[in-house]
Amino acid sequence: MTEKDKYSVLFEPVQIGPVVAKNRFYQVPHCNGMGHVRPRAEAAMRAMKAEGGWAVVSNQETEIHPTSDLAPFAEGRLWDARDIPALRLMTDAVHDKGALAAIELVHNGGHASNLLSRAPILAPSDMAIENVIPMQARAMDKSDIRALRRWHRDAAVRARDAGFDVIYVYAGHNMTIAQHFMLPHMNQRSDEYGGSLENRVRLTRELLEETREAVGDTCAVAFRFAVDEMLGADGMQAAEEGRAIVELLSDLPDLWDVNVAGWPNDSATTRFQPQDGYQNDYISFVKQVTQKPVVGVGRFTSPDLMVSMIRKGVLDLIGAARPSIADPFLPEKIKTGRIDEIRECIGCNICVSADSQGVPIRCTQNPTMGEEWRRGWHPEIIAPKLSDQEVLVVGAGPAGLECAMQLSKRGYGVTLADAADEPGGRVLRESSLPGLSAWMRVADHRLYHLRQDNNVQMFMQSQLGADDVAELGLKHVFLATGARWRRDGLGRSTYRAPPQIDKAAQVFTPDDIMDGKMPPKGPVMIYDDDQIYLAAVLAEKLACDGYDVTFVTPANMVSPFTQYTLEQARVQLRLIELGVTLLINSTLVALSADAVRFACTYSGQEKELANLSSVLVTERRRETTLYDALRQRGGLDTLNLIGDAASPSLIADAVYSGHMAARNFERSPDVIEADWFRRELVATDKE
Amino acid sequence: MTEKDKYSVLFEPVQIGPVVAKNRFYQVPHCNGMGHVRPRAEAAMRAMKAEGGWAVVSNQETEIHPTSDLAPFAEGRLWDARDIPALRLMTDAVHDKGALAAIELVHNGGHASNLLSRAPILAPSDMAIENVIPMQARAMDKSDIRALRRWHRDAAVRARDAGFDVIYVYAGHNMTIAQHFMLPHMNQRSDEYGGSLENRVRLTRELLEETREAVGDTCAVAFRFAVDEMLGADGMQAAEEGRAIVELLSDLPDLWDVNVAGWPNDSATTRFQPQDGYQNDYISFVKQVTQKPVVGVGRFTSPDLMVSMIRKGVLDLIGAARPSIADPFLPEKIKTGRIDEIRECIGCNICVSADSQGVPIRCTQNPTMGEEWRRGWHPEIIAPKLSDQEVLVVGAGPAGLECAMQLSKRGYGVTLADAADEPGGRVLRESSLPGLSAWMRVADHRLYHLRQDNNVQMFMQSQLGADDVAELGLKHVFLATGARWRRDGLGRSTYRAPPQIDKAAQVFTPDDIMDGKMPPKGPVMIYDDDQIYLAAVLAEKLACDGYDVTFVTPANMVSPFTQYTLEQARVQLRLIELGVTLLINSTLVALSADAVRFACTYSGQEKELANLSSVLVTERRRETTLYDALRQRGGLDTLNLIGDAASPSLIADAVYSGHMAARNFERSPDVIEADWFRRELVATDKE
Repeated sequence: MTEKDKYSVLFEPVQIGPVVAKNRFYQVPHCNGMGHVRPRAEAAMRAMKAEGGWAVVSNQETEIHPTSDLAPFAEGRLWDARDIPALRLMTDAVHDKGALAAIELVHNGGHASNLLSRAPILAPSDMAIENVIPMQARAMDKSDIRALRRWHRDAAVRARDAGFDVIYVYAGHNMTIAQHFMLPHMNQRSDEYGGSLENRVRLTRELLEETREAVGDTCAVAFRFAVDEMLGADGMQAAEEGRAIVELLSDLPDLWDVNVAGWPNDSATTRFQPQDGYQNDYISFVKQVTQKPVVGVGRFTSPDLMVSMIRKGVLDLIGAARPSIADPFLPEKIKTGRIDEIRECIGCNICVSADSQGVPIRCTQNPTMGEEWRRGWHPEIIAPKLSDQEVLVVGAGPAGLECAMQLSKRGYGVTLADAADEPGGRVLRESSLPGLSAWMRVADHRLYHLRQDNNVQMFMQSQLGADDVAELGLKHVFLATGARWRRDGLGRSTYRAPPQIDKAAQVFTPDDIMDGKMPPKGPVMIYDDDQIYLAAVLAEKLACDGYDVTFVTPANMVSPFTQYTLEQARVQLRLIELGVTLLINSTLVALSADAVRFACTYSGQEKELANLSSVLVTERRRETTLYDALRQRGGLDTLNLIGDAASPSLIADAVYSGHMAARNFERSPDVIEADWFRRELVATDKE
Repeated sequence: MTEKDKYSVLFEPVQIGPVVAKNRFYQVPHCNGMGHVRPRAEAAMRAMKAEGGWAVVSNQETEIHPTSDLAPFAEGRLWDARDIPALRLMTDAVHDKGALAAIELVHNGGHASNLLSRAPILAPSDMAIENVIPMQARAMDKSDIRALRRWHRDAAVRARDAGFDVIYVYAGHNMTIAQHFMLPHMNQRSDEYGGSLENRVRLTRELLEETREAVGDTCAVAFRFAVDEMLGADGMQAAEEGRAIVELLSDLPDLWDVNVAGWPNDSATTRFQPQDGYQNDYISFVKQVTQKPVVGVGRFTSPDLMVSMIRKGVLDLIGAARPSIADPFLPEKIKTGRIDEIRECIGCNICVSADSQGVPIRCTQNPTMGEEWRRGWHPEIIAPKLSDQEVLVVGAGPAGLECAMQLSKRGYGVTLADAADEPGGRVLRESSLPGLSAWMRVADHRLYHLRQDNNVQMFMQSQLGADDVAELGLKHVFLATGARWRRDGLGRSTYRAPPQIDKAAQVFTPDDIMDGKMPPKGPVMIYDDDQIYLAAVLAEKLACDGYDVTFVTPANMVSPFTQYTLEQARVQLRLIELGVTLLINSTLVALSADAVRFACTYSGQEKELANLSSVLVTERRRETTLYDALRQRGGLDTLNLIGDAASPSLIADAVYSGHMAARNFERSPDVIEADWFRRELVATDKE
């Protein structure tokens, strides 16, 4: 059987109500930090998925009314007809590329804070809202429910008028009022919308029926539903009410889009859920209960797994959010037998972190993600070379690998050198730590290309000095020499009062640990003033290796940045379960051979602990020795510092930096400069 | 001496470089959550200050370049000429009302996160940036510094072209790169921009000189400078380098706008800094060192204090941010001898909390703040009555008082009834707690008006039932019956597993404490699942009263909401200093007569503490008994539930709700509905 035959089932059309998906690839709704705040960027990003072969491309949760106001976050908005032009940008662009466009209508109830609209917050019953702000939601009365139904119906009509083919009713992620009505702990009503399951599902049933009534002749009505809250008996379970609800509503929607709640479960990272298809146990019953097509997700990137999901009757459509972000051309690559070229999602949730912060999406694997409109970047196309220049890239970490790969794709001759035994840089090093093995895909994808390209020469174990570079005779040099963790404890919390570190103190850095230089057995203190992710990963490693670990941080939780990636609760729980002692709100003051002293971040009161050795995770120093030497020496036409050597940051940022450098090579400085200023503006014409 | 003569000094014009302020009232730059995201709202809000008599009206920090990108926050933006039209809306509107318009240009360095632009982050030296995100700033090289100076100069020219009269160089709040260069702990440079004070001030000097060169012929160059970091010898001090810098730059700017850093110090709340003029000790030296006019702030609302500041030679111009928010017409009221009508700022920082959350400003005292454009609300003008209807307002808390006052201003006859002995509702009750006494101004301002108006009848100690209302014969009823704190421990963290509370447990609510019903002496546990502000205030009260207090919360800090009001560090420190035992990440499970059981929010692991009595601060129940009875009974033309009785929330929200109800009385439902949808949209026309 040829590859084409093997995967042909994935390219069968699927009828969804009145519309037809041309194949089984379905980009489910996902947030991207663009929405109504950046409508051109939204349109271009979704259109890229359509171009990459997805049969259905969805937008993101789209507010239907000022009582569901997610400001300042950049989601979809369709309060009234004035919002149609922004959404029309997307549907036109998606249709141009031959896909169906779906819209996820939502009323968020008490998941919204209505901070812009200042409207009342609605819920099944009186209760605190989700965000820690001083507003309580009020129980909807019957007229509120009638109004909500009218808002949803009107929004569906507007969505159709904006050109959408698939229109969602949304009861998932614990973020929507339709789901809130279903959940007993949020619904204490005694009328026909509360009590029995049938009553709790009534609102959803009405929304589905009324959406169909309003637009069902031309648009498919999709229903996104979380079948399980993954809380066991404390929440909705797929085997209990989850299934009962699918049975109750069975063939009412044209499509079931099923997943698990809440969002941290649905979008689990590889760090805590390494298995693709991890939702199957929860969602596989659905097709047994409905005749309508079913779409589900689970970080699917393997076409073989996809085929087996279809053949086994688990799914009709292969849903994807993150895999479609990492590779918008995933369907096209499968179709054309270029499986090895797929940029596999590494499950790091950096995409989510951007939306969590209210800014446009980015992706570790796909540096063009979010830049389709602003910079005009295409994930599969890059401008061909402008000359026959040869380039040198020093450093085979994420920035260097991406830069070298893109330059080679442009057709330049590329020499890539790295001092280490193996390529990958920090990706290679960090992926050896607990939970991060999938991150190696960042290097693998790039090495796959580089090793095939005859224009590329890779030299490992090559520590280059300025003389070596001169000797090579290459006039265009990109330096991705990375960064090394500081050993002096200086970090964001200690600039005014640097810690006193005794020479006899046994101090280790993350680089030491990743180099295999381990502390002596016994108590180890890990001090985290980085506050991103690495310190907790190291703590996990050391605890698993049998060390008695104390985790100290000036922050008020472990790894606060991981709140944005939806991991923080799991990160802290993991350390608790491993018996790591946690000491928060504590800033390093002094370190000696056998003790460590901290100050309370609030009161300054000091505390001393006996200690044997310490791992200090604070900041990184950029490695610029070669850059400085080459700059001093002069004579190069291009000398470009990229990645962590330019600005220590995420792997995603390093890849982005390497990508941009490759794109900008031999472009004029004025054109390069202008790219930084491209943005969407609020209308200022008179109204 | 007449009042007019007494305050005439405040209305003297002041020359500021090439422009003249018509009086001494100066609205210093302050954030408002509008900026480039909501330019029409910004323009209307600033114009209202101009209309109210401020001689100079400033905008807010305005980014000059993509390397100073504060997204997703809604500040000013002037990256290039495309931003001019949005800013022109403001300057035109401010000029129309006879004031000068000022713009606060800024490069934020490592205070910016560049999350939208993804540009490198710039700083004097390599270091972690301010926000906990995984990016480090890189030390600027000489070409970076030259570029920054060019950006600033170009931005100044654009600002002039946008119509601004006063253009700022900004080195304050620890938020700007000009100040970062001044601070030794952030500047470890060894070139002419680091080391000596003169070197560290070099960049600021250049920015000032170049701004004057570029626009100084027509625009005043203002310099906003934080003279003291309020960290003693750990930071810049007014008596040391702060003064030395003023001496170094002396007459270089046309205006000194001086304050203290960081923002929590400059915008101290009354809870922690009850004294108006609290910055005087720091800033009073400035006028001794420069010939140029000086503006300063300190929550000035008393005209007598203002006059004394001028007469004593402390200031030339009375700066205000928060007092101008609480009362945009403060200058006009002083000018026309209506001192008693000033809505005094209560120093609660709810204005700041909105900006902290990236949404438009609101104000506890002034419910029209932020609604000048969207709802067309004017703080001093309200539509006259449309009929001779008489109205009943039940409840003399913040919502009822505001509603009654505005209805009476419209000319309606108002009957206001409350069951309590004294009016004020929750404002009266909460203002008796430690630190909150200034909050009583919310009631005082409204009572001042109500007591003078012959159209108003107030009845205290009047608990009305449905029969009483019927007997009164009034057909238009506004119910501001408030809310009461729950006694059952149910709150945001316990809906799935309500706490088991033994009947023998000694449980108190915040209402009990405010009613003077105190726990027995001994250990008291305060459980805070509200997480806003009140629980910590009660803990302070009980600790001061001699109780042995344990503060327990599911949050990871005390009063997380107070981060938005810039108070959290002080709130938690206060409890530590009072010897309160803090137990975070702990959810209430069970309460008996002598013990309390909690579960870790991460692991669920339970922990029991011996305990005598408990104060449960979780959620509030809306008091709707009268509403429900009247609804049942029928026969009213208006039955409007407002304030906490409609949706338990902040005092600011209650006032807003009462205000809106008064505005909307006798307006058509369609027109009322349309108001909710008014918003600013991103341009979607082709470009």
